[in-house]
Parts: sequence; C-alpha cells; structure tokens
Amino acid sequence: MPIKLYDSKVSPYARKVRLVAAELGLPIETIAVDFQKGDPRKPEYLAMNPNGKVPVIDDDGFVLWESIAILKYLAGKKGALLPADARGRAEADQWMFWWSNHPEPAIELLIYELVLKPFFGKAGNDASIIAEAHALLDRYLPVLDKRLAGKDYVMGKLSVVDFAIAPPLELASRRLSVDLGKYPNINAWLARLQAKPYWKTN
Amino acid sequence: MPIKLYDSKVSPYARKVRLVAAELGLPIETIAVDFQKGDPRKPEYLAMNPNGKVPVIDDDGFVLWESIAILKYLAGKKGALLPADARGRAEADQWMFWWSNHPEPAIELLIYELVLKPFFGKAGNDASIIAEAHALLDRYLPVLDKRLAGKDYVMGKLSVVDFAIAPPLELASRRLSVDLGKYPNINAWLARLQAKPYWKTN
Repeated sequence: MPIKLYDSKVSPYARKVRLVAAELGLPIETIAVDFQKGDPRKPEYLAMNPNGKVPVIDDDGFVLWESIAILKYLAGKKGALLPADARGRAEADQWMFWWSNHPEPAIELLIYELVLKPFFGKAGNDASIIAEAHALLDRYLPVLDKRLAGKDYVMGKLSVVDFAIAPPLELASRRLSVDLGKYPNINAWLARLQAKPYWKTN
Repeated sequence: MPIKLYDSKVSPYARKVRLVAAELGLPIETIAVDFQKGDPRKPEYLAMNPNGKVPVIDDDGFVLWESIAILKYLAGKKGALLPADARGRAEADQWMFWWSNHPEPAIELLIYELVLKPFFGKAGNDASIIAEAHALLDRYLPVLDKRLAGKDYVMGKLSVVDFAIAPPLELASRRLSVDLGKYPNINAWLARLQAKPYWKTN
C-alpha cells in the first residue's frame, strides 16, 4: 500500500516530501489539503497533526509530521540518502537542525508577514519583523554558501539534507525577495538540484 | 579521553548538553567560551563552528555543533535515551524538529530583543517582534501541553527529546516573561526533570 501524503501544492515543506519520494522511487498517494476551505483546522486533521500543518504522512497506520522527520523516515525505509556511520549521521543531523532552527524560521517569518497574514486579512508587512528575518538570513546563509564551496551537495553526496533545505530556499528567492545573488555556491547547488528530472514537476 | 564541550553558563543550548551528559554518566571536559571577550568570533573558534555559537563538542577530533544533533550523538554512544525502532526514532525526530523549528526560534527572538540586543548596545525591545514571538508560543506550547497529558516524558520514557526542549523553556519562563501557568502538563513535566539530582547544579 503506498504511503499517504497529506499535501499542498503551495507548501515548500510538503514539496520536500514529494521530491524525496521521487528521488527514492517511493510511490505515494497524495491527498490535497485545502487551506482556503479550512481543512487543516478540522478535528479529524488536528487529531493527526495538532499543529494543523502539512505535510503529514500515513504509512500503513503510522502517522508522522514535521517535514524533515518525514524525509529521514522515508530515506531510512530505502537505506538511502543518509550517511551510514554514526559520525556522518550526526553531521547530517547538525545541518538539518541548523537549517530548521535558524534560516527556515526566518523564511517562515517572511511567509507570515508577506503572504499568510495579508491572505487571512490580518495586519502583515511589519517592517521590523521583515528586517529581523533578513538580518537572520544575512547571518546564516553565508554559512551554507561556505559549506558548499567545492562540494556538489551539503554532505558531499546527495542526501536528505539537500531536500530539507532547497525547497524553502527556492521559495524565498522566487516569492519573498530574498536575494541569493551574493551566494555563488548556493546558486550552483540549486542549479544542480533543479536539473533532476523530477524537480520542476514537483 | 573525555569529550570536550565548548560551553557557556548563560546558554540554554549548552546546558542541554551538560544535562544529557550528566544523565548518561558521560565525562566531559568543559571549556568556557566568553562572549564578552568575543571568544566565539575568533577565527579558531569560527573554524570549528562557523555560526560562532555554543555548544560545540570535540570527540577525539570529531567536531559537532547544534545542540540537538549533539544530544542525539551522545545518546547514540551510550545506546540510551532514544527509541530503538525506526518508527520510535522518527517520532522522536518529529518532536525535536518541531521544537527546533517553531517554539525555540520564538524564544530565540525574545532572547535577542530582551537580552542580546540591549547587551550589545543595539535597538531591542521591538514591540512587534516580541508580540510575534508570544503569538508563536501561544500557538505551539498548547501542542506540547496536550502531548504531555498522561505521560511522564514527551516520548513516554525519558529521552533526549526532554533534554532538547526543557532548558530553553525554563529560561523563557524565568527570564523572558513567558507564562507557563496555563500549561499544567508542561509544569508537571518540568518539575519531574527539576527533581533529577543533576538538574539544578547544571
């Protein structure tokens, strides 16, 4: 039975899961979650994910949310896209927790201020929050750019780390006025991912 | 040779590592990093951790940063404090990435605005950033409180997940005016951790 993915085309977090499933050749059944209709606030959805967010997977009754935890779980099922040794796994965790704790919440602040709050009719576009988000990205993205110098992917070889980071970063560049022009290694790495046959259709 | 911990008494993130090492009975050698003297901005420190933050560990030449990645690595060395099966591990990851991605960055915004920016002579105490941080905590902390209903620890049994979450949450309550009074299960869980013999001395 294919793994069910509670999905949204507008979520860069759900997109991480679609992309990694495509890379792994794992069949998934996507179930569209409609934010405009309030699907993720319905009791049966909150019973699966109390945060009311996508993505959520259901693997034969095992329900899991948080995009990066899902990426690691899917990779583990195939024994692929993660280092095999304890130190390599710890280093992959390091980069995924770093991304999760620093740049991604800054991007999330921009999504809230520039997209979600205006969409829901709340006051958004707060100048000091937007400035803080850019200050955080200006602090942390150079760390990623330096890491990628001389490497094809964050861990050297393609891994779940790349799938954890790239989709929100692409969104930030395309929709949230985050200028990646000053990060040549990040740009070369994104181009490498965008050349994958499944990248643009997912 | 004991594991070296680049440490700061004022960092709730370094404290996570001291606490988990105490629980695991792992000897560590702490090396104080002095923020006032600019230690973490020195080139030799940035060569270890390009983010200029604590904690960092050095295990016989293997350098690792990001507090939760360190907790998982130390637990793995002892084969303790983490579920043994793939689904249990994925669920522990889910809660740690959830914490890392949502409540902890909100607490970090409060630390910046209320402590770090004023300390470094920058404009802090921005009302809209502080309000945004509280809105995020008001959204996400009820999820943790509900999870802890009927459980001694986040995963049922004591695990690294508890050590990932509790130290910044205690700081938020004690120093950053985050009111945990409305979360009875979180309070009972914190009291359970605070009763550990090593908790208050670390």
